[in-house]
Amino acid sequence: MSERPPLEPIGHLGFAQVDHAREARNGVPEVVYGEGKSAAQIAAIVARLVERHARALVTRLDASKAEEVASEQPSGHYDPRSRLMWWGRAPETLKGTVAVVCAGTSDLPVAEEAAQTLEWLGAPVARLSDVGVAGIDRLLAHREALARADVVIVVAGMEGALPSVVTGLVRNPVIAVPTSIGYGASLNGITALLGMLSGCATGMSVVNIDNGFGAAWQAARILTLVERGPAEPPASFSLPT
Amino acid sequence: MSERPPLEPIGHLGFAQVDHAREARNGVPEVVYGEGKSAAQIAAIVARLVERHARALVTRLDASKAEEVASEQPSGHYDPRSRLMWWGRAPETLKGTVAVVCAGTSDLPVAEEAAQTLEWLGAPVARLSDVGVAGIDRLLAHREALARADVVIVVAGMEGALPSVVTGLVRNPVIAVPTSIGYGASLNGITALLGMLSGCATGMSVVNIDNGFGAAWQAARILTLVERGPAEPPASFSLPT
Amino acid sequence: MSERPPLEPIGHLGFAQVDHAREARNGVPEVVYGEGKSAAQIAAIVARLVERHARALVTRLDASKAEEVASEQPSGHYDPRSRLMWWGRAPETLKGTVAVVCAGTSDLPVAEEAAQTLEWLGAPVARLSDVGVAGIDRLLAHREALARADVVIVVAGMEGALPSVVTGLVRNPVIAVPTSIGYGASLNGITALLGMLSGCATGMSVVNIDNGFGAAWQAARILTLVERGPAEPPASFSLPT
Amino acid sequence: MSERPPLEPIGHLGFAQVDHAREARNGVPEVVYGEGKSAAQIAAIVARLVERHARALVTRLDASKAEEVASEQPSGHYDPRSRLMWWGRAPETLKGTVAVVCAGTSDLPVAEEAAQTLEWLGAPVARLSDVGVAGIDRLLAHREALARADVVIVVAGMEGALPSVVTGLVRNPVIAVPTSIGYGASLNGITALLGMLSGCATGMSVVNIDNGFGAAWQAARILTLVERGPAEPPASFSLPT
Amino acid sequence: MSERPPLEPIGHLGFAQVDHAREARNGVPEVVYGEGKSAAQIAAIVARLVERHARALVTRLDASKAEEVASEQPSGHYDPRSRLMWWGRAPETLKGTVAVVCAGTSDLPVAEEAAQTLEWLGAPVARLSDVGVAGIDRLLAHREALARADVVIVVAGMEGALPSVVTGLVRNPVIAVPTSIGYGASLNGITALLGMLSGCATGMSVVNIDNGFGAAWQAARILTLVERGPAEPPASFSLPT
Amino acid sequence: MSERPPLEPIGHLGFAQVDHAREARNGVPEVVYGEGKSAAQIAAIVARLVERHARALVTRLDASKAEEVASEQPSGHYDPRSRLMWWGRAPETLKGTVAVVCAGTSDLPVAEEAAQTLEWLGAPVARLSDVGVAGIDRLLAHREALARADVVIVVAGMEGALPSVVTGLVRNPVIAVPTSIGYGASLNGITALLGMLSGCATGMSVVNIDNGFGAAWQAARILTLVERGPAEPPASFSLPT
Amino acid sequence: MSERPPLEPIGHLGFAQVDHAREARNGVPEVVYGEGKSAAQIAAIVARLVERHARALVTRLDASKAEEVASEQPSGHYDPRSRLMWWGRAPETLKGTVAVVCAGTSDLPVAEEAAQTLEWLGAPVARLSDVGVAGIDRLLAHREALARADVVIVVAGMEGALPSVVTGLVRNPVIAVPTSIGYGASLNGITALLGMLSGCATGMSVVNIDNGFGAAWQAARILTLVERGPAEPPASFSLPT
Amino acid sequence: MSERPPLEPIGHLGFAQVDHAREARNGVPEVVYGEGKSAAQIAAIVARLVERHARALVTRLDASKAEEVASEQPSGHYDPRSRLMWWGRAPETLKGTVAVVCAGTSDLPVAEEAAQTLEWLGAPVARLSDVGVAGIDRLLAHREALARADVVIVVAGMEGALPSVVTGLVRNPVIAVPTSIGYGASLNGITALLGMLSGCATGMSVVNIDNGFGAAWQAARILTLVERGPAEPPASFSLPT
Repeated sequence: MSERPPLEPIGHLGFAQVDHAREARNGVPEVVYGEGKSAAQIAAIVARLVERHARALVTRLDASKAEEVASEQPSGHYDPRSRLMWWGRAPETLKGTVAVVCAGTSDLPVAEEAAQTLEWLGAPVARLSDVGVAGIDRLLAHREALARADVVIVVAGMEGALPSVVTGLVRNPVIAVPTSIGYGASLNGITALLGMLSGCATGMSVVNIDNGFGAAWQAARILTLVERGPAEPPASFSLPT
Repeated sequence: MSERPPLEPIGHLGFAQVDHAREARNGVPEVVYGEGKSAAQIAAIVARLVERHARALVTRLDASKAEEVASEQPSGHYDPRSRLMWWGRAPETLKGTVAVVCAGTSDLPVAEEAAQTLEWLGAPVARLSDVGVAGIDRLLAHREALARADVVIVVAGMEGALPSVVTGLVRNPVIAVPTSIGYGASLNGITALLGMLSGCATGMSVVNIDNGFGAAWQAARILTLVERGPAEPPASFSLPT
Repeated sequence: MSERPPLEPIGHLGFAQVDHAREARNGVPEVVYGEGKSAAQIAAIVARLVERHARALVTRLDASKAEEVASEQPSGHYDPRSRLMWWGRAPETLKGTVAVVCAGTSDLPVAEEAAQTLEWLGAPVARLSDVGVAGIDRLLAHREALARADVVIVVAGMEGALPSVVTGLVRNPVIAVPTSIGYGASLNGITALLGMLSGCATGMSVVNIDNGFGAAWQAARILTLVERGPAEPPASFSLPT
Repeated sequence: MSERPPLEPIGHLGFAQVDHAREARNGVPEVVYGEGKSAAQIAAIVARLVERHARALVTRLDASKAEEVASEQPSGHYDPRSRLMWWGRAPETLKGTVAVVCAGTSDLPVAEEAAQTLEWLGAPVARLSDVGVAGIDRLLAHREALARADVVIVVAGMEGALPSVVTGLVRNPVIAVPTSIGYGASLNGITALLGMLSGCATGMSVVNIDNGFGAAWQAARILTLVERGPAEPPASFSLPT
Repeated sequence: MSERPPLEPIGHLGFAQVDHAREARNGVPEVVYGEGKSAAQIAAIVARLVERHARALVTRLDASKAEEVASEQPSGHYDPRSRLMWWGRAPETLKGTVAVVCAGTSDLPVAEEAAQTLEWLGAPVARLSDVGVAGIDRLLAHREALARADVVIVVAGMEGALPSVVTGLVRNPVIAVPTSIGYGASLNGITALLGMLSGCATGMSVVNIDNGFGAAWQAARILTLVERGPAEPPASFSLPT
Repeated sequence: MSERPPLEPIGHLGFAQVDHAREARNGVPEVVYGEGKSAAQIAAIVARLVERHARALVTRLDASKAEEVASEQPSGHYDPRSRLMWWGRAPETLKGTVAVVCAGTSDLPVAEEAAQTLEWLGAPVARLSDVGVAGIDRLLAHREALARADVVIVVAGMEGALPSVVTGLVRNPVIAVPTSIGYGASLNGITALLGMLSGCATGMSVVNIDNGFGAAWQAARILTLVERGPAEPPASFSLPT
Repeated sequence: MSERPPLEPIGHLGFAQVDHAREARNGVPEVVYGEGKSAAQIAAIVARLVERHARALVTRLDASKAEEVASEQPSGHYDPRSRLMWWGRAPETLKGTVAVVCAGTSDLPVAEEAAQTLEWLGAPVARLSDVGVAGIDRLLAHREALARADVVIVVAGMEGALPSVVTGLVRNPVIAVPTSIGYGASLNGITALLGMLSGCATGMSVVNIDNGFGAAWQAARILTLVERGPAEPPASFSLPT
Repeated sequence: MSERPPLEPIGHLGFAQVDHAREARNGVPEVVYGEGKSAAQIAAIVARLVERHARALVTRLDASKAEEVASEQPSGHYDPRSRLMWWGRAPETLKGTVAVVCAGTSDLPVAEEAAQTLEWLGAPVARLSDVGVAGIDRLLAHREALARADVVIVVAGMEGALPSVVTGLVRNPVIAVPTSIGYGASLNGITALLGMLSGCATGMSVVNIDNGFGAAWQAARILTLVERGPAEPPASFSLPT
């Protein structure tokens, strides 16, 4: 791979077009989805990202593949629970707090994917685990603390009831993450997903099953907006109806 | 229809075999499922049931068909909310109480099907409505009362989260009834149904979507058993494993 | 209905428990879901809400039922496109702008549900319609304006591809609303819903099919948070892992 | 893990909030769902439960993980058929009998999960196996014995027809457990589940696929209620309709 | 439409290619599927069939469309329960009997579609109605009679358990017809269909939901084969494996 | 296992109730479904069946488990393609021929399950392989031979189109077997199953996915009926409508 | 609506952004999807299209709405079978022929949507109807003619088997259109759709259920390409792999 | 295998009927679907194809099975990414270019199956990878090049949005290939498949999930037609409507 000029918006690797302009456009560099890519492909993309952006994050990376990637791109950190691997971090810390709440101990890997992604993005995280609705007092014991979090991520499998209850307890935005924990009628997380979308509480939105990463990203966009404050309103597209 | 001897276990109507032995076998006479039957068929079956058992219950009966049935079989009562129609009632009142709890006002028709079926079966009913999990304090305000009900029927649509929460609050059996209330990802009640089956709380079981009648029947079997007390254990089938 | 003391947190109407504490807890009073409720029930709940909170919003209200409600509770406004009916509005206007972008003209009723809910909540709205991905230049013509909106709601049916494209163009949070527009393989919005959840762009989250209301609510929670700024971090629940 | 005062309602383990109040609230201590938890996590939770409640039950535990748990928490019993592991048992035996009926030999692991959970809870169990509906005389040979059981749990895969037949033969409550036995159109137990929910017999309710544990828990709640007898009716929530 | 020579194997009507060779090939002339065709189209096809084959059968014909067809093609018979309309009948009567057994009164329209199709095809029919498995004695009372039928068609909705039980009682072929009777988890007949396909009894096969016509046709093929006796074995295609 | 009297209709093995009366009732002894049973369980059931009926058949038996069974019950034959294992065979050969037609080479294991089951039952089989509809001339080359088969079993995966074409070419009964061959939209055989049930050709019925065994059983019931001829019609249940 | 300069690529109607550049980009002007739009909206878009492109096509237009549109935009033609409405036509006729083949008379509305769309686009059409696979000779009678068509569109409901057979008979591209004709297991066209996608014949591709319009459009793109001949190969994006 | 005369249209291998006439009928010899066939079966079919047609292609071949096949049929080439194995190639090169565009690096195996199949068929291929819609500028950078491709194959997983965008940018036919890349709501490619079928852009058609081979085949049929030019129109089947 020959050297390229620093302002090239797309890094051409043949099998991949690294989207260097994404940092300017979206505020954060591209992240590498680890499934279905070879260790060699991942290492090459990470090399390019680190070179241009001084940080990189890979998601859904199995431990064995992580080892291969590490041998080619050595200075990263790998966490086997969240299956995240990263090089560098956000240069600054965001203000505000994201609470990452999870229903059961079995949901922890997804919750950790959310929490560690947030930390990589520079967002302060508060964790609360194993507060499923079958023992509602465990959740209510943290009612005031929850109400103080600026964004709440709620991770739950099985029937996915926890986000509805939490949303009713707070006034800040809630992001719900269904997990594939459960069996039979849980349908690998489909039931929790549909339940969260059908939820009777308003003020929450939902991401894909086991997508702790996506919830974290959305939460970080919100915290960044809070920090930046509202923009001038866009004039051009308020078209007549 | 000619007269038949009183002990005939099956009443032959051609299009229907009225199961007169059901009262002896199951404790309660056969109930008529109103959908897909003509008013004439329903009236004929009801006539036979009233003749032999002095009471009859028809479920899922539209108002217009109910009127037709009433013109042929006059002394019944019809409730348009529950779409139940009945002639006579259980001869005695059961001991104990069934709480019929429902998540939202839109779930009331199903809750009423449960409550009125229980009343027809002679079971005392306590109703609690509109206590969905998005405002959990409405439910918790009734925590002690719920714990005193002998059986709790919980009716909920949308994400169907309420039964899990209730089951965690009480020690008596809970029967969950999903409703078809909701839209989109609610899938006409399938989501609530799957959610209840996947529920993390133990001590509850589930009936079909909108099946308030079935939940009531199960509750009444439990109350009857409570009244009768445990039987001598069956000896014959404890086969070696 | 007898008079009740002003601080009662729950308004007992028998068929409904009006959650008066919700304004304190969630920042906004309870909203009435119009489907499956009778006009009389809706009017009674609205009366209570207006009495206590000086405003009320009903969603998913058919035109004919709206007329009945209006005859009992006269000073409301009804919009047949969004099927919303409201009495009063938010006392103050929020800062910041929510862009409501919709893919096709057929998606407009859902987009209007979102836009008018936002207006009822006091949030400034900018509308952009009919910019589906089959003619991508229509969207790109508004690229800079979109990037200035504080929150973007994207409404799309059929394959639901628009939110992924928009999310890649902006750095603020995007909320995707699938609609039931389409036929055959669109499965009444399920396809758009699943597509949005599977989307390759990060920074968006999803609400139920046709749930413009829910998206608006989530957007308003974000704008409110932006206005209020980050809270002090909650101390109590950062438990050891 | 430092020592904690004996009356602490929640046992904080960081990754888990052990719900010590559950015994007071639900009559039985919390049970540990074994899937998705590490052996170390399970052992820690069990240690806490045994310390406070003198008994513990873990479900869905693979043989290899059970061995690991046993090495840290030695005095338990593990059954490879039911995949249950337990320490201690219920202090007293309940009155009454639960019949655990299963359709085919392949359904036995689920039936054993039900039967052994019941035994751990102190409930007398009578087992009847391999009485599927294709040879109905095998079931009818036990007709009188079935009618004497206080609760009947029916375990069946494939088309799941057995619970409907059994429910028609008895007057006590029936709890149906679909299993994932079968292939093709059996859809890993979904068909049996839907069939049981659609069943034409009234007096039964259903739990999740392969959830012998849940059925046992529901049966034990019923037996406990039978033993305790009906409570005084709750006064507070019979609200006007 | 001009006259055509009598031996033309295909009757060209433009919108339809009437398959006159079907009688030679399959033993019975083509039958007209009534849904999605206009009355004029149906009448034209029937005219051609009656001209060439002296009989015709139309399925799934609504009463109002039947009246229109009758006005153009007058000598037919219409039955509103089965929604069949026919002109002429099979010239001869088959030997043997087909039992048409149905689980509930609500399933009768489908059972009648089967029974009347068989009668049109010349097959003797014995009807048995309302013998669902919730009252198994109603079925067992006819055990010997069922065993004497040459083919048994079993029609059932809801959980569709009846065919498995019947198949276990007889040695002749059983054809199962799921119906769309039921609600909620019955999924418009999908549950009964899947249940029948998953059935643990061997010796039965299944047709489409509500397809009484198709079951009758298969039964008639069997009776015809019984009458004709086995053919000489085909020599040509026993290829080496 | 102690000796038992020869006329005992049910063989009690604890984990299994061997249905010895099935041969009298259904004409053939019980068959053992191999999945989900241990080799020891299978061997015990087979021993009992061979003792009483001089033959036994086990389906869906993996090669490794078959070896274990063989070590305990030595005189059987195992075929790894069909995964069938059997001891003894039908005492007599049936008249007539069953054609087993399969669409692709990948469908052969299911076709062989059908063919070998038929041979075990004493039915003559003619095989025709790899005649899928994409090269229709391969099928049409065998048109006359197919028309001479007394029953035709058609095995096909992917879109499952072959049975419709075959049914249109013959006048004898056709039994369709969908297979799980295919990928993506084939949904592990669900698509072929639904396609066969929706088929426009009349005169065929369908069994479960990959259920070559079930199709063979149905075909053998038909051949047996052909050999025996029609029975006297049952008198008792032609009830008035 | 004020006048706009003729070269404006987007026509701003507020509720719609008419994509005038589409003709330059895709070769044909935008088409109006009629569902979910009011007659007034449709008329306004059509007016703009006719003004700029001298032709317009609306799909999926009910007869009553078509009448309303006609009253505002008078010179169009409406066909109630295809539910298409159009103003003007393609200025020139394409070379080559598209065969539109349909399985049953009930599929004709979809086939007509395809055929009339092609005619509006200037493509010669040859129609062949009612040649379903249950009477394969009807199709084979047209074998040579089919092989001469440049593109073949095959429209079929139920099991959707026809496209596989046709694709095996020709060497030119085949486009398959599933229809919603059928019942029960046909699942409103899903079964035909999945079957066509799973088809064993190669050389065909599939469009949405009932989407005759889409198939026609694809066929016209192919004919246009045939007329224009191959372009010079694009140089820029053959990136190294 | 004995020698056979060169003009035999079907090669009888017992387990397979090699369709030698396919080259004459469809323009290209039969291709071997590798799944579900043994290496020995594959090698035998390939031997026959190479003997008669001097080339052969096997799809979906695992590396280990490929090695076995190679040992029996040595001169082939195997590519582990596409899982294709081939002997010989098309004798001539087609004119025109097929662009194979893929959304993400993880989709490359499917894209390579398409590209290499095209190369085997003699079609020039231009590859463009990793241009998913979340960074739309990567795609737009190739806008002119895409518009010059004669056929465009678009391969995408997750939400499958790329084909709609591409179709809107070009005027030549687009063939969309959904992939099974993604997790949770992606449903193993079902979501991408449904999304592509529901796409709002006209001018594309769809093949099965991961079916790069099928898309290539369709594209090659188009290029061949372009090279041959339109045929004389078929006269025979334009039947009156």
